[in-house]
Amino acid sequence: MPRHLASPPRIAIIGFGAFGQLIARHLRDHVPLCICDPQVRANDLPQVPLAAAARCQVVVLAVPLSQLEGVLRGIAPHLRPGALVADTCSVKVRPAELMRQILPAHCDLLACHPLFGPQSAATGLAGHRVAWCPLRGRGHLRAAALLRRMGLRLLPTTPEHHDREMAVVQGLTHLIARGLAGLGPLPDRLATASFRHLARAVGMVQADSPELLRTILAENPYAEPVRKQFLAAADLAARQAG
Amino acid sequence: MPRHLASPPRIAIIGFGAFGQLIARHLRDHVPLCICDPQVRANDLPQVPLAAAARCQVVVLAVPLSQLEGVLRGIAPHLRPGALVADTCSVKVRPAELMRQILPAHCDLLACHPLFGPQSAATGLAGHRVAWCPLRGRGHLRAAALLRRMGLRLLPTTPEHHDREMAVVQGLTHLIARGLAGLGPLPDRLATASFRHLARAVGMVQADSPELLRTILAENPYAEPVRKQFLAAADLAARQAG
Repeated sequence: MPRHLASPPRIAIIGFGAFGQLIARHLRDHVPLCICDPQVRANDLPQVPLAAAARCQVVVLAVPLSQLEGVLRGIAPHLRPGALVADTCSVKVRPAELMRQILPAHCDLLACHPLFGPQSAATGLAGHRVAWCPLRGRGHLRAAALLRRMGLRLLPTTPEHHDREMAVVQGLTHLIARGLAGLGPLPDRLATASFRHLARAVGMVQADSPELLRTILAENPYAEPVRKQFLAAADLAARQAG
Repeated sequence: MPRHLASPPRIAIIGFGAFGQLIARHLRDHVPLCICDPQVRANDLPQVPLAAAARCQVVVLAVPLSQLEGVLRGIAPHLRPGALVADTCSVKVRPAELMRQILPAHCDLLACHPLFGPQSAATGLAGHRVAWCPLRGRGHLRAAALLRRMGLRLLPTTPEHHDREMAVVQGLTHLIARGLAGLGPLPDRLATASFRHLARAVGMVQADSPELLRTILAENPYAEPVRKQFLAAADLAARQAG
């Protein structure tokens, strides 16, 4: 067994925005962590430059998709043989392509998408789910064991299947949320049970960043056709009724 | 006190579809009922022709909006002084207009919209709500007292305010449901918490009749502008993202 697997792997989290902070809060009791973010201070966790983060045994990328390529080019020369690199973007086809293209063959690759966020996981991670796409090597197995011990459910899938399903799941939830936001405050007094569910769905995503909205609507290769099909069917129903 | 108010009023339910049956099931233990429907048999409740139904002290109209005008013209000559006529359509401006135009001045008028249906009230009426628009007379007060004893919550409003709010509440829930139905079976495995709420909203209205869909989308005077605003905002978000 190579020496660097003998002790618990040190994990680097690159990107310390809302999601990076969420995973740091939950991982810190289980494994030694370090943080890399040029803008956000980590307070009581060790903060390291990009090259040092890239030398950790596990490198978790919690940056927006728009920054992913730059970060991958930054870490590529420093990655150690057998290191595991995992991204956490809301789409998977494009990050998987970038990781395969840019990162050296001697490190393991995992594309994953935690299906929760700071709001839905406010009370803990147990029972929450992660879409899980191992791309290369076996490094994902130890990561999976750790996350399962933390109560997470892993859903094995492929980047293509993930993005196809998410074109509906996230693409339409966010599209509908934007449509409803355009109407101002939602009515409440006469709301039906079904509309309350709709309003709850919208409420859960309306604080998401414009960056995330852009990733979901524009960086998922299946989102545009699904959106067009949805809008066409809604439009047809409206015209048939009228 | 006029003689016909001394005993509990006999209530006629005109229209014995899914909703007429739902209210009959709950009202029958509280007041004497009769049913009028040319097509559906009421089994163990007295079934009467339209003219006889119109001579009851309370006449509840549980027919689709497309049949309302015909039924109003049919009952108008037979209504007794002081009778209460109440419709239950999913829009209120148009039924209120028709009732005021067609029914004689000597009867009381109530426009109401039960904000529940056979599915959402499967386990009982308690806690469910009714949008309540008294149009003429005081007959609605006794009806309100009875429904409150049955555990219903009455929400006083006007036909205009009701339709304005419902253009969003029902108009968009049904529009979104039609849009999603156009995509085939919804993904489930990778569904987020927000998408599950969306799917639940859609599931609650997808069995509604084409007749009800038409009423909600085409017979609410505020539905079309709200729908256009929603679709335009969704479309703009999609184009900004792309």
